[in-house]
Amino acid sequence: EVPLTSERYRVRRLPFSRLGPRDVAFFQRLLPGRALTEPEALEPCNVDWLRSVRGCSKLLLKPQTAAEVSQVLRYCSEKNLAVNPQGGNTGLVGGSVPVFDEIILSTVLMNRIISFDTVSGILVCQAGCVLERLNEYLEQQGFIMPLDLGAKGSCHIGGNVATNAGGLRLLRYGSLRGTVLGLEVVLADGTVLDCLASLRKDNTGYDLKQLFIGSEGTLGVITAVSILCPQKPKAVNLAFLGCQNFSQVLETFTTCRAMLGEILSAYEFMDEKCMELVEKHLKLSCPVRDSRFYVLIETSGSNSTHDEEKLNSFLEQAMTSGLVTDGTVATDDKKIKMLWSLRERITEALTHDGCVYKYDISLPVGKLYDLVTDMRARLGQSAKNVVGYGHLGDGNLHLNITAESYNHSLLDAIEPFVYEWTARYNGSISAEHGLGFKKKQFIQYSKPSEAIFLMQRFKAMLDPKGILNPYKTLPSSS
Amino acid sequence: EVPLTSERYRVRRLPFSRLGPRDVAFFQRLLPGRALTEPEALEPCNVDWLRSVRGCSKLLLKPQTAAEVSQVLRYCSEKNLAVNPQGGNTGLVGGSVPVFDEIILSTVLMNRIISFDTVSGILVCQAGCVLERLNEYLEQQGFIMPLDLGAKGSCHIGGNVATNAGGLRLLRYGSLRGTVLGLEVVLADGTVLDCLASLRKDNTGYDLKQLFIGSEGTLGVITAVSILCPQKPKAVNLAFLGCQNFSQVLETFTTCRAMLGEILSAYEFMDEKCMELVEKHLKLSCPVRDSRFYVLIETSGSNSTHDEEKLNSFLEQAMTSGLVTDGTVATDDKKIKMLWSLRERITEALTHDGCVYKYDISLPVGKLYDLVTDMRARLGQSAKNVVGYGHLGDGNLHLNITAESYNHSLLDAIEPFVYEWTARYNGSISAEHGLGFKKKQFIQYSKPSEAIFLMQRFKAMLDPKGILNPYKTLPSSS
Repeated sequence: EVPLTSERYRVRRLPFSRLGPRDVAFFQRLLPGRALTEPEALEPCNVDWLRSVRGCSKLLLKPQTAAEVSQVLRYCSEKNLAVNPQGGNTGLVGGSVPVFDEIILSTVLMNRIISFDTVSGILVCQAGCVLERLNEYLEQQGFIMPLDLGAKGSCHIGGNVATNAGGLRLLRYGSLRGTVLGLEVVLADGTVLDCLASLRKDNTGYDLKQLFIGSEGTLGVITAVSILCPQKPKAVNLAFLGCQNFSQVLETFTTCRAMLGEILSAYEFMDEKCMELVEKHLKLSCPVRDSRFYVLIETSGSNSTHDEEKLNSFLEQAMTSGLVTDGTVATDDKKIKMLWSLRERITEALTHDGCVYKYDISLPVGKLYDLVTDMRARLGQSAKNVVGYGHLGDGNLHLNITAESYNHSLLDAIEPFVYEWTARYNGSISAEHGLGFKKKQFIQYSKPSEAIFLMQRFKAMLDPKGILNPYKTLPSSS
Repeated sequence: EVPLTSERYRVRRLPFSRLGPRDVAFFQRLLPGRALTEPEALEPCNVDWLRSVRGCSKLLLKPQTAAEVSQVLRYCSEKNLAVNPQGGNTGLVGGSVPVFDEIILSTVLMNRIISFDTVSGILVCQAGCVLERLNEYLEQQGFIMPLDLGAKGSCHIGGNVATNAGGLRLLRYGSLRGTVLGLEVVLADGTVLDCLASLRKDNTGYDLKQLFIGSEGTLGVITAVSILCPQKPKAVNLAFLGCQNFSQVLETFTTCRAMLGEILSAYEFMDEKCMELVEKHLKLSCPVRDSRFYVLIETSGSNSTHDEEKLNSFLEQAMTSGLVTDGTVATDDKKIKMLWSLRERITEALTHDGCVYKYDISLPVGKLYDLVTDMRARLGQSAKNVVGYGHLGDGNLHLNITAESYNHSLLDAIEPFVYEWTARYNGSISAEHGLGFKKKQFIQYSKPSEAIFLMQRFKAMLDPKGILNPYKTLPSSS
């Protein structure tokens, strides 16, 4: 039902070798029972979560160790076979599925926790560990993962690092560029690069691991991760508030940042359209009503009395000054989860609304919602819904447009308009999702040509045959 | 008085061109009044702050813009002239002064603040801005720099980024890898790479700027920086405590981390020898006495009542459980500064104690002080003093050894013992100071050969003639 990516997007296969029976035999010897050719096994790995792109790989490999990954890549490199590294396959830009017949190299069986140090909070684990499992493991020891995102139940930490995932806790704990302390990476030729340090500080030479963070599997395959984990907060509070216009959303942000200070751990917003879709398609019900915007504020701290005092004085200020017209507060786990789901399940609600065009944009916060308004005006009746939500505290807007079905003229009305608009305000055309397959041709809206040229040189140096996740991240040179 | 680095360390000059009168004339036309050849102008730039290494450069250039830096490097690249980029010249590993006759390219006149956004807290400035000046500027607007270090009065932000400086606030605000959002860099061939984004999130292609953070001027010259600045805390408190042994120092750390949580902004330690030297050489006086270890704990928060409550209940716990035997607390600016100077001026006190051998080591915190004890036992009477202090919260030890004068056999007793010891516990031989000239031959104690090889390939790609800060960071290939 999902058309092949190559057909829909009219890309041409590069001259890699085609998989032959001898290759399959080699892999089945190397990974007994873990080199699969059955269509049922391949089907879910050939299509992305959004069902927007599809490849036709004939082989799925499930290594358990870096040494196995090394042997796979050395062979593929020698035989000129293209490889598609895959984690939880929850990315939103078509980066995690093959475009043609690339061999799928899944991290699913590399799911071992290697060590956790309760003094430093440093976790070392294999790349295929599921984010939510890691968080559960850490919570038992009084810690949490420094990142959290809607796909936590399926996404792999290796995939998170490969795409430099942002998510809901970035406002508080910073980006993976700061929290990832070490990586083990297998290069295209099979070299195992062991930069798996578990130290907060290490200034011995160039920080090679950074190049692999956010490279979407195009420069190497991440096989293990060392990451700094914060302590589990003793108190978590949530406020879910309604605002009547976007400037109130902004002023509420600056007010709460000043008054909540170090305990502010998330500031998310969604417009009324998002709320309508979540209520309609998922039957969730929102305790706050009749607002044009909704804001979710989370605090995480070490003293519940202090945190509640801070939150209450902020709420009083926000209410009396008329910034916020309605709201509810949650301190117990159940209500916190319920309120979070209103925000976290927007992506899911959108998939029920039809064909979704997804944009993940960074902008100066003041301009953030203007893009949604302008897009809505531009598209008029040709779109079903145009909605905006996201991580306002990070200047990150998720702009989503739905239609009854895929429509090329609608896409032409959206692109490159959305990228030109973003570039005009020095924004980023991909804040946290990466470029993958679907956005790679638009990189020049956010990066100058000297930078793109340098990226291409790094790619050529590290993967001279171009076998690692081809057709992704960088624009085709031609 | 300071012997030439090349003589003391017996390194050979690489076959770069020698500066001729035509070259000088070119630079004086390009930078009128800012291309200096006078010995008085060159003298302070040829010797490092520690007076431990010295070069013999004949030309000091002071560009004001990236365009000028670009013209300088294009010329040097064409003529095969070596260049030594220099910021505040406060580094401790001999990375910021020439080894032979490299042209000194100083950022001292690139000291313009380009923009500051009070909503996002993002500062954009030229590389030569002095850290303390930036912090003063930000404080007026309710923000602070995310890093702080003893050399703040002289060091340049460009140099901080080039060396990936750590410092006193890393525990709270994380490393520069997370807070630096963008860089403008001039490559060896004069190409200006504009990655000066001021966005918290930007996942469009590989994060090129990371390669320049911590590359010590060997891959490009940083000309401007975009950096995320935290809000100025409304309340700052300091506790200066005495402990009787190192395991109490460790237990005090885990206790205060749990009880102070999100307001903990520094956890520093020093041994009694450090205190003796600070009192002896700088005539500072410590209000806490007769302890084998001293601990400095800083809190920064948004509510002084809450912060004091947290701090007091921690102190009560630490005192009643006998972890801490004596201590003092400061909430006013003057006493806070006085207590901080006991810690910050140790480096200065050491320079008055004689010739200093400096080591900046990352280790698992539990092992941190064992290295000092082992070294003291090993050296016995051949060293004057062996002291340990540092950023315990980051697992970062500053091990310093003093002697009446430079002594080669003492150095042989220290090295490679100190590096072997560190490698045995998977530590880093340079936590935050970098490798510069003095540590580059020891990189293999912290990095595997595959990683060093890859670093050398990056260097060869970005600076094929090797003109940028030669003899630094990477070991000579021969």
